[in-house]
Amino acid sequence: MTDTRQAALQYAHQNRQRFLDELIELSRISSISTDPGSKAEMQRAAEWLADHLKKLGVEHVTIHPTPGHPVVYGDLLNAGPTAPVVLIYGHYDVQPPEPLELWESGPFEPTIRGENIYARGITDMKGQVLAACDSIEAIVRTGTLPVNVKFLLEGEEEIGSPNLKPFIASHTDLLKCDFALNPDAGTLTPEQPSITYALRGMAYFELRITGPDHDLHSGTYGGAVHNPATVLCELIAGMHDDQGRITLPGFYDRVRALPQEERDELSRLPVSDQDLLDQTGSPALFGEAGYSSVERTGARPTLEVNGLLSGYTGAGAKTVLPSKAMAKLSMRLVPDQDPKEVHEQLTAYLNQCAPKTVKWELDDLVGGPASISDRSSKAVRALGDAMETVWGVRPVFKREGGSVPVVNLFQEYLKVESVNTGFSMPDDRAHSPNEKLHLPTWYKGIDAFINYFFNLVES
Amino acid sequence: MTDTRQAALQYAHQNRQRFLDELIELSRISSISTDPGSKAEMQRAAEWLADHLKKLGVEHVTIHPTPGHPVVYGDLLNAGPTAPVVLIYGHYDVQPPEPLELWESGPFEPTIRGENIYARGITDMKGQVLAACDSIEAIVRTGTLPVNVKFLLEGEEEIGSPNLKPFIASHTDLLKCDFALNPDAGTLTPEQPSITYALRGMAYFELRITGPDHDLHSGTYGGAVHNPATVLCELIAGMHDDQGRITLPGFYDRVRALPQEERDELSRLPVSDQDLLDQTGSPALFGEAGYSSVERTGARPTLEVNGLLSGYTGAGAKTVLPSKAMAKLSMRLVPDQDPKEVHEQLTAYLNQCAPKTVKWELDDLVGGPASISDRSSKAVRALGDAMETVWGVRPVFKREGGSVPVVNLFQEYLKVESVNTGFSMPDDRAHSPNEKLHLPTWYKGIDAFINYFFNLVES
Repeated sequence: MTDTRQAALQYAHQNRQRFLDELIELSRISSISTDPGSKAEMQRAAEWLADHLKKLGVEHVTIHPTPGHPVVYGDLLNAGPTAPVVLIYGHYDVQPPEPLELWESGPFEPTIRGENIYARGITDMKGQVLAACDSIEAIVRTGTLPVNVKFLLEGEEEIGSPNLKPFIASHTDLLKCDFALNPDAGTLTPEQPSITYALRGMAYFELRITGPDHDLHSGTYGGAVHNPATVLCELIAGMHDDQGRITLPGFYDRVRALPQEERDELSRLPVSDQDLLDQTGSPALFGEAGYSSVERTGARPTLEVNGLLSGYTGAGAKTVLPSKAMAKLSMRLVPDQDPKEVHEQLTAYLNQCAPKTVKWELDDLVGGPASISDRSSKAVRALGDAMETVWGVRPVFKREGGSVPVVNLFQEYLKVESVNTGFSMPDDRAHSPNEKLHLPTWYKGIDAFINYFFNLVES
Repeated sequence: MTDTRQAALQYAHQNRQRFLDELIELSRISSISTDPGSKAEMQRAAEWLADHLKKLGVEHVTIHPTPGHPVVYGDLLNAGPTAPVVLIYGHYDVQPPEPLELWESGPFEPTIRGENIYARGITDMKGQVLAACDSIEAIVRTGTLPVNVKFLLEGEEEIGSPNLKPFIASHTDLLKCDFALNPDAGTLTPEQPSITYALRGMAYFELRITGPDHDLHSGTYGGAVHNPATVLCELIAGMHDDQGRITLPGFYDRVRALPQEERDELSRLPVSDQDLLDQTGSPALFGEAGYSSVERTGARPTLEVNGLLSGYTGAGAKTVLPSKAMAKLSMRLVPDQDPKEVHEQLTAYLNQCAPKTVKWELDDLVGGPASISDRSSKAVRALGDAMETVWGVRPVFKREGGSVPVVNLFQEYLKVESVNTGFSMPDDRAHSPNEKLHLPTWYKGIDAFINYFFNLVES
């Protein structure tokens, strides 16, 4: 280990109390993006972070106003043109704290109990943002930052980032980078760090079936008119075969196969089927034949019914033969599926299978491709090594089943992949009362980031 | 034709204007059962009818209070013990008239335009009730009523007859009869009278499927947990085969086959597939292989989805893997299916087909058997002959697809079938603005009832 790295780690250890004090200060700001009454607090959080970045020596720090909440940008680009440029993403907005009565201490009165500190947004993700800042501070105060970094901190993640897309689209030069570091993904346990190297994409549709042009009396017409709710059910039923595979024509053509080496790596994940049963309360698990649950949720595409609506749904009986039936359907995609192609595949299926007794309409609601980082790339390997150094165990490499919109924006506008990590834990109650951050893990996280920035150029 | 019959018909023809005046008087009463503000008008309508029956010489006329609107009863039992007892059913309540702005004349200001008279409730069914009364009056004023009649006039038909069942159940001796005459069923055209000799029964269920015990993130868990909305769709899809037949085990075991003679009779009905397409706006008709549309809606059982609800159904996309999915399912039954057996058949299907990955619950909501009158019985034949006498054409014999709750009540408590007829027409706009009654048909209806009562003992 180099002296500069050692010096930075030592600095971080010596300044843990101040780092914590700063985290407490930031967490006192009730930056609730969804609450119109919190506009001033949102601005205060943006200004706090801008000041904080300036204190670290970050340059070009700017609070960019948007039609919603501001974006904070800053960069530190003194490592030279051959050193990588890392775009550090974060968000300073938090979920609403309600229901307030379930909090043991005030959501904006950060309180330490045992090894944890409790406050709204402390794990999601003010703690993660400051861990990245603290690692940069430790390095720049004790030597020279070996990589170039850019900070992109938004205030609208919890409300779907409505103004981030236009901001990124109009600042592609400013945000140009080699890859993004997104510490908004969590880890597994205090003992087991993890790196999320892949996220599933999505194609989300609304399918509407129309039979008769108005609701009919099911006695008068039932038997002679095709019921659109029945047709919808039959179409949905036909979308899976008896092996749990999706039947849309060509759906698997572009699905990247899972190499055995990657399957072995995924099997290391400490997530058992019993864990999934406990977490979901399902009577039994189910999925595509030939794959483990971890593979099914992370590395294989799925088709889910997210919503169904037709006819009468209130209490009691109403003998209606409905005119319309609607389903929300979404596919989780894996590399190299393309949401536009999935739209065509679903359309082909409907053209082939929908009977002439009904009409159908299909709306595209949301779509984005999957994201995957090469686990052997420096961006990923350097982080794995850093974690192993700090924790003493090799991190597990995870594929997340969900999508992260900002990851798709970086793909689309900046043409870069994201390394997704972070030091929040499944039991941190993000979005729930008594959100917390595990302090020993957080301190390790700062150390890991310090090691990471050195590893990116040294290893 | 006997002299007494002729005399009664002549009386009826001479008194048409007064019959009409009385219909106008009754139709001025805004007896809207659903409107708490119409309580006094409901009472007024009951009293008007009770007085009217008394004027005809009907005996034991009583206004029976109920927790809701009163039941009017009266009888005329002087035809002797060998003559049949006919229970004449009717209702004096009407649908709310809204939207008022669409009425060309006030809903409770009966107005003649051309051959029609317009008022709320005039076809459904004040006109039908008075046609029966007028026929009785014509006979008793000119001779002797050849049959025994009992009147049962309720004030809650438009709100589901909540108090009729307990009334019938507690007055089975009072209401004892050979069959019921229900003029609440309509005819087809001014030129073509009809008799409804069969109604379908019903078995109505709510099926609830539960997978995970709370809504899940479809990214995190999608692929490893069975989606209850998908399961519901698969179960519903499996309830029909590719011939449009219902697959519940034993479902057709008790279905009475359609004899060729009855199929020939049904094929006389002037209802074409094009009519059904025009009425429903469906792109194409559909139903059980091997049967005509008239047979499918009247003489064959069906299984309809009346409602579907699961997950997120608002605007846009929400990536939920729902915990629950619900369907309202109802079967229209034909003789000799039993709603309780259908419940068992559906349960057997679910036991057989529902996967172990979900739990299911089934609620029985409404159930009643089908109703059918023997077309060769005197009760039906006498009416057919009466209509042929008046119209000069043989009536068509219809099987209605819907259920009439009062018909089921008469089956259950009085053990009698109903002869369903009436002189309202499909374009009379029952339940809609500008409800009307076709006067030439109404006058023919009075004549038909006169002939009917004579036919019941003479032919």
